[in-house]
Amino acid sequence: MKRDKISNAVIRRLPRYCRHLAALRREGAERISSSELGKKMGLTASQIRQDLSCFGEFGQQGYGYNVDSLYQEIREILHLDREKEGILIGVGNLGCALLQNFKFGDSGIHLSAAFDVSPHRIGTEVGGVPVLDAAGLADYLAEHQVSVAVLTLPARFAEETARLLMDHSVRGIWNFTSFEFEAGEEHPDVVVESLHFSDSLRVLSYLIGA
Amino acid sequence: MKRDKISNAVIRRLPRYCRHLAALRREGAERISSSELGKKMGLTASQIRQDLSCFGEFGQQGYGYNVDSLYQEIREILHLDREKEGILIGVGNLGCALLQNFKFGDSGIHLSAAFDVSPHRIGTEVGGVPVLDAAGLADYLAEHQVSVAVLTLPARFAEETARLLMDHSVRGIWNFTSFEFEAGEEHPDVVVESLHFSDSLRVLSYLIGA
Repeated sequence: MKRDKISNAVIRRLPRYCRHLAALRREGAERISSSELGKKMGLTASQIRQDLSCFGEFGQQGYGYNVDSLYQEIREILHLDREKEGILIGVGNLGCALLQNFKFGDSGIHLSAAFDVSPHRIGTEVGGVPVLDAAGLADYLAEHQVSVAVLTLPARFAEETARLLMDHSVRGIWNFTSFEFEAGEEHPDVVVESLHFSDSLRVLSYLIGA
Repeated sequence: MKRDKISNAVIRRLPRYCRHLAALRREGAERISSSELGKKMGLTASQIRQDLSCFGEFGQQGYGYNVDSLYQEIREILHLDREKEGILIGVGNLGCALLQNFKFGDSGIHLSAAFDVSPHRIGTEVGGVPVLDAAGLADYLAEHQVSVAVLTLPARFAEETARLLMDHSVRGIWNFTSFEFEAGEEHPDVVVESLHFSDSLRVLSYLIGA
């Protein structure tokens, strides 16, 4: 597996394979051809075969893919089975929505704590996760092996917080703020994955036309 | 402009151009070369030129792009200046987060109403948007020209609600639920844009490695 060579587009399709294969498993499907899978995902059969060939040999001529084993392989490629410790910073509406409804475990993340500045929040639990005082974030990071931090705080605090996280060896930042992270120069090993809601809505605006 | 021929990847980059050009404008930049813009966006100069050539002729050899006019052009391509009426369905934590913090207007959407089933919510305003009884959704759709609906309700209600929306000529669904919309057969003109949070977190998981 030469992970460096794999295009961004292929990487971004991996979770989609995962979702579709999970659904097929739930439906009890045992095998699927590349053209059937392609139809579900809006891809061609050859695109499916090409994508998967980046990671090894899957499927058999005339048989297709074994749903369960392809699902497991893709989970492994995405490291979903290796639990990583995560924290969430900013327990506002969006933070609460994630803590209460989002299944972090399904993506290999165990959320050990959430942080906020509000005295009303600190000391409570949201979605089973304890909310701690953001003033203690640096100490917490020093004492825990936090791999992933979820940023759901106001955008104006994003940069400063990200700096603290990076200085404490957090490897991934899942950014829900509108703060624009530049491609990392100081911390080239840190991955920032931003969910820009407005990008998605603007694509929708484009696609529905004038 | 042959919009049908434009690849999904290019379309998804348009909002990113928009964000980066908006930031350049705020900084007072008047012009930018394709290589400078590429550096900011993590693209090559030739990719930038190729992307933009899908939509017409922009920029001049030796001068680069005029920041303001390219920004305006891309806003126009995305239809951001044509206001469309939108509604939001499901005023839980995520719905509230969007109503209170997300700038729908910046994406050309005027939210005229939100809908919920909770008696505590109905009749209130969140982020300046009135919350109406979800029981009246069909009537509301019949009386208003709603172009875009934001789905922030529990996933189990997504399909039924989407059907109602499509039957009332809603053109775009911005789906925050985990419900998997299949490529539309009954309503081929309706665009569904889903924000699958887990896809984003799984890409992060892949990128940070084992």
